[in-house]
Amino acid sequence: MTGKPEGTQQRATAEMVARAAKVSRAAVSRAFNPEAPLKPEKRARILKIAGELSYTPDRAARALVTRRSHLVGVIVPDVCSPWESQEVDALTTALQAEGFATLLFKTRVDSSMDETLLTYMRGFNPDSVIVFTENVRPHMLSRFLDRAVPIYVTYPIERPKENDGNGRWPGEPDTLFDRIDVDQWEGMEQAVALLAGYGCRRIAYLSGKPVSLGQHARRKTLEALMARRGLPALVVVPGDFSYDRGYAGTLDLFRLEGGADAVFAANDESAFGALDALRCELKLRVPEDVKVIGFDDIAQSHWRSYNLTTVKVDLEARVRALVRLIQRRLKTPDAPAITETVRTRLVVRGTVG
Amino acid sequence: MTGKPEGTQQRATAEMVARAAKVSRAAVSRAFNPEAPLKPEKRARILKIAGELSYTPDRAARALVTRRSHLVGVIVPDVCSPWESQEVDALTTALQAEGFATLLFKTRVDSSMDETLLTYMRGFNPDSVIVFTENVRPHMLSRFLDRAVPIYVTYPIERPKENDGNGRWPGEPDTLFDRIDVDQWEGMEQAVALLAGYGCRRIAYLSGKPVSLGQHARRKTLEALMARRGLPALVVVPGDFSYDRGYAGTLDLFRLEGGADAVFAANDESAFGALDALRCELKLRVPEDVKVIGFDDIAQSHWRSYNLTTVKVDLEARVRALVRLIQRRLKTPDAPAITETVRTRLVVRGTVG
Repeated sequence: MTGKPEGTQQRATAEMVARAAKVSRAAVSRAFNPEAPLKPEKRARILKIAGELSYTPDRAARALVTRRSHLVGVIVPDVCSPWESQEVDALTTALQAEGFATLLFKTRVDSSMDETLLTYMRGFNPDSVIVFTENVRPHMLSRFLDRAVPIYVTYPIERPKENDGNGRWPGEPDTLFDRIDVDQWEGMEQAVALLAGYGCRRIAYLSGKPVSLGQHARRKTLEALMARRGLPALVVVPGDFSYDRGYAGTLDLFRLEGGADAVFAANDESAFGALDALRCELKLRVPEDVKVIGFDDIAQSHWRSYNLTTVKVDLEARVRALVRLIQRRLKTPDAPAITETVRTRLVVRGTVG
Repeated sequence: MTGKPEGTQQRATAEMVARAAKVSRAAVSRAFNPEAPLKPEKRARILKIAGELSYTPDRAARALVTRRSHLVGVIVPDVCSPWESQEVDALTTALQAEGFATLLFKTRVDSSMDETLLTYMRGFNPDSVIVFTENVRPHMLSRFLDRAVPIYVTYPIERPKENDGNGRWPGEPDTLFDRIDVDQWEGMEQAVALLAGYGCRRIAYLSGKPVSLGQHARRKTLEALMARRGLPALVVVPGDFSYDRGYAGTLDLFRLEGGADAVFAANDESAFGALDALRCELKLRVPEDVKVIGFDDIAQSHWRSYNLTTVKVDLEARVRALVRLIQRRLKTPDAPAITETVRTRLVVRGTVG
């Protein structure tokens, strides 16, 4: 090391590699583009010399040649919510392993995604866009993307059919997007069966943000499952996925609305709020007096203070499916819409029993 | 909308804007580069026409001209840990507001960051790099970055001096980097005073990952503060910042090591593990029998089951300081190292009293 800051040291250029390898500048470019024609031995020699000189091509320059930015845009409402942070974490690891970098975009606090933000995202020319929020519709997004086909995560109310063909969005049948369907029916059916088995009849649904299509589908699925068993109508408690609204909503339910035998929460974090309200403030016992079930199975759900029975979404399978969709779409940009299904199952812990 | 997928529609090019505005292709480029000379009225006319045609320049192309990628690389060990996810969330929002996008990189499970990953990061040519992990040293990073000066978050043992000049790293005095110092002394002094005020003498430190310089400094600070008050030597319990190790370490402490009057945890998440071990398994009362203090003040710390007394790091101030450092460095790439200080303070809740 010298006294000179290393940050300002000379970087090897493509020209330096070309001179050392006695090839043209264009051949160096082609060597770094797997799709460009080049004799294998020539490519190997150039890459070897590039390695010796610590040369790596600038992706900005490469992107102009290959039309690949190696960036995957990920649009999330809240990075800091436990479920989303666990998904972004797993996804970043998986994308890195496949040579992509994760470009994170947050929708605003009010969940709006305005044109400025979309224009801005387009400037980075992502290879793919994964959308974890329901307020950015495919139609709106496709106006702002040139070639990245977005992937949506959706929650059908009924059991999704395998290979049902096109990605569709209510009112937007013609916009191309790929899709991950979360089959919440299976895990929720197990949850309702367990509650029914313990004699619960009056069941409350602690809802998520009204804008969320996922939580809306969860409510509809729950209503359909309860109707099949002849259970009385679902009691709906407004919520927004947060601990604090889960806590407050549960107080209202028991103080003003006559309570319930069981609380089914739209996500685990609001189930924690319900549990704390029941135990710490209402002095009710869980599971003896009231049963509580969550949705997601975030890492915190096994913590002893909560030890939550919950419907688990298979995060690993979901991330693998997302990466698979990105790669398929890059190989066949004009393929029809692709759908993959991710299953759910009930994880039984201490809040029902 | 037509039946044709919108994703394949024709995108406006710089040439189309140039023709419509009756200017050269180069003038269109200059119009989108705030640093390029261009008459204000000419720039305004070009930008207006570009807006009408929905033209935005490709950042890959722009980056070649301006040498700005508008990308900020963020290197984190675990996106899914609550503190880091809350910081990445706030940082992404703040960077978006300033026209940057967050490019997320994860160090590996074993906390190593190998040359492949750094080479890969260099390819994206970030304007700045923020490092939240201690295993990527400035010296190593600077070998892989051409012009982005990294920003490190550090935790001095003693109170940091304002404006002490250079960024420094043990054994690497010559590598240029900017720095955020977290002044943990202030908040930890308040914590130790509170524990002493309640008569605690035997204090245990539930440590974080051994590789973390931050948690090492936290331990040293705690030892210095306790020595000043004449308290007996600190009992150190191995940990790794996780709930599970916090839980198991606390069981060992009380079953094998004679227990303690108070547990000071290296972060909030492991403090939750300590609390659950004390209450659920050891059947001890908190705060009556044992006091517990955490570090960070993550959103979960106010949850009723934990209601944790903790040393709060001012996340908002920390994110503002990071954005300020990035902007300063972009204005004056060759400026000497800059340091900002972020304060801490004790938040008193239910686990000491």
